[in-house]
Amino acid sequence: MVRIAIDCMGGDHGLTTTIPACLRFLKQYDDVELILVGRQAEVEGALLKKKALEHPRITIRHASEVVEMDEPPAQALRNKKDSSIRVCANLVKDELAAAFVSAGNTGALMAISRFVLKTLDSIDRPAIASALPNQKGKGTLMLDLGANVDCSPEHLFQFAVMGSAFVKGTEGIDRPTVGLLNIGEEVIKGNDVVKKAAELLRASELNFYGNVEGNNIYEGTTDVVVCDGFVGNVALKTSEGLARMLGDVIKTEFKKGLWPKIAAVVAAPVLLRFKKRMDHRRYNGAALLGLKGIVIKSHGSADAYAFFHAIKRAYDAANSNLLESIRVTMAHYVPAVAADTPVEALAETEAKPE
Amino acid sequence: MVRIAIDCMGGDHGLTTTIPACLRFLKQYDDVELILVGRQAEVEGALLKKKALEHPRITIRHASEVVEMDEPPAQALRNKKDSSIRVCANLVKDELAAAFVSAGNTGALMAISRFVLKTLDSIDRPAIASALPNQKGKGTLMLDLGANVDCSPEHLFQFAVMGSAFVKGTEGIDRPTVGLLNIGEEVIKGNDVVKKAAELLRASELNFYGNVEGNNIYEGTTDVVVCDGFVGNVALKTSEGLARMLGDVIKTEFKKGLWPKIAAVVAAPVLLRFKKRMDHRRYNGAALLGLKGIVIKSHGSADAYAFFHAIKRAYDAANSNLLESIRVTMAHYVPAVAADTPVEALAETEAKPE
Repeated sequence: MVRIAIDCMGGDHGLTTTIPACLRFLKQYDDVELILVGRQAEVEGALLKKKALEHPRITIRHASEVVEMDEPPAQALRNKKDSSIRVCANLVKDELAAAFVSAGNTGALMAISRFVLKTLDSIDRPAIASALPNQKGKGTLMLDLGANVDCSPEHLFQFAVMGSAFVKGTEGIDRPTVGLLNIGEEVIKGNDVVKKAAELLRASELNFYGNVEGNNIYEGTTDVVVCDGFVGNVALKTSEGLARMLGDVIKTEFKKGLWPKIAAVVAAPVLLRFKKRMDHRRYNGAALLGLKGIVIKSHGSADAYAFFHAIKRAYDAANSNLLESIRVTMAHYVPAVAADTPVEALAETEAKPE
Repeated sequence: MVRIAIDCMGGDHGLTTTIPACLRFLKQYDDVELILVGRQAEVEGALLKKKALEHPRITIRHASEVVEMDEPPAQALRNKKDSSIRVCANLVKDELAAAFVSAGNTGALMAISRFVLKTLDSIDRPAIASALPNQKGKGTLMLDLGANVDCSPEHLFQFAVMGSAFVKGTEGIDRPTVGLLNIGEEVIKGNDVVKKAAELLRASELNFYGNVEGNNIYEGTTDVVVCDGFVGNVALKTSEGLARMLGDVIKTEFKKGLWPKIAAVVAAPVLLRFKKRMDHRRYNGAALLGLKGIVIKSHGSADAYAFFHAIKRAYDAANSNLLESIRVTMAHYVPAVAADTPVEALAETEAKPE
């Protein structure tokens, strides 16, 4: 039986998405127990509506506070000691849950998780990792997606170790290939950090493919793509923007006049199948890797279907040997890993606890 | 009359695309003279085939050498003094042409242009700028797209000045809005370089919008988006990869079975219109900004239609007051601009001339 804690209050839609997603998940996976965390009365109310208050595999855990989506992480960490995120993190820390899922404020989630769970001994900085769809029909795990804006070669190396362990554990790929995101054709191939990271990776036992470029993410050239959080975040948001634009333009074209409207009806099944294949909701659920516990971040605007997939990711990670796998791989490389330079904001929140 | 030099030999397809593009351009714009640069016999042969050898607005300029697409820039600069790129750059330097266009090797093009034309006095480093389509149906000019991997705040500021001047000159927008590419929602908003660049921009007379995120590029939030060349190149290549994947998947779906095939026929006009609206070939032609002359880089794989648009961009830039506009804006800010730290590879080629 796998026990997963759910922050029911987080995200743009809170209980209206998290509760249906949880119930669906319980229906589909019978070896799971969920601990629903949030304001007890509200959670009970939402369950009652779905006639699921007495579900044998649901426990409710009261948390009196909710971190707002735009609340400064340091403030959430300092002032809201009974927030749903904090209670979830404590459940994982106390080993009452194998993982937790939240659609809440990313910064606060990272700061609280880091404070409560702590970073793995061999890892300097946690990273945010998420799968992006690729042409091979699988996912390319990309990290870091925004937790660390300035990275040393050692940090990128650690991201590679964590990404490999995650893909191995959740996708069952024995030796995932790792690509280092770089720029190609142009005059100067990469900056010093990337060049040194490539050396570390080449000398390691990881299955290092070499440099990859932005297009390789979607070509599925490697199982894992490693980059700093600034570059990763830009690549992710740029992709979101492009996909939205293309979607909007095609919708507009299918509405212009009678023939396009007929064409839209005729083509509907094809377009739906396309939409389904490319459905980003199936890739929802980013992992905060590098912590002493499994934390999955759902997109804030996720609907129930998307949130379901975030729970699935937590379930897969909980069933893998993730933390141990990272520990073992890192143990081989301890000498190569330099001391950490502190992450500005996160270090700040960690340095001034409570 | 605007005189533009064309490197007829560059790109994956050389004369077979450049010549038809030139002839089409001459047909459409009657205030243009083109200087076709390349191996004389070959250029003449290609013109003869098109019955255009005697075109009154064409001059041929012999260049005995061609820079290979994968040739190291420093080698091309040192050894090929009669390459078509080099001859083009000399024509612009000697004011025999107002601009030149090449689909050749980007690194060599940048190195040779920089060596021959020199950088503008107030600019530390040239940058590569290109327009990307946006939801508003216009282009978002983005720079740098790969010439400079490590940038100081002053460099980013200079990119903003150059990008603004380019959009003003070519699009006729009086005070283009400028966005600084950054990461948003996550814990740490940007690195030090970006934060300081924002200060410089805020204090300037540029129409600074503030930070933008990757999605804003395609939303058309600002006319210009500024970033370092590493981030810009990754964003560009990631976009190319995503667009290709989506295109391939939709094509596959329309081929699966009888109904989709019928749907494809019915929807063809709509899909074509969509394709036309999103046609990246219309955005072909990146500007190497910051040089004492106008240089436009076409995509290496451009077809004649795409190359036509690169010539159009050179034409628009030649008709604008680009260099003067950059000079004037920079003159206001000279005190703020720090001394340059050398660009590794480019500086190298410049330091060891001939």
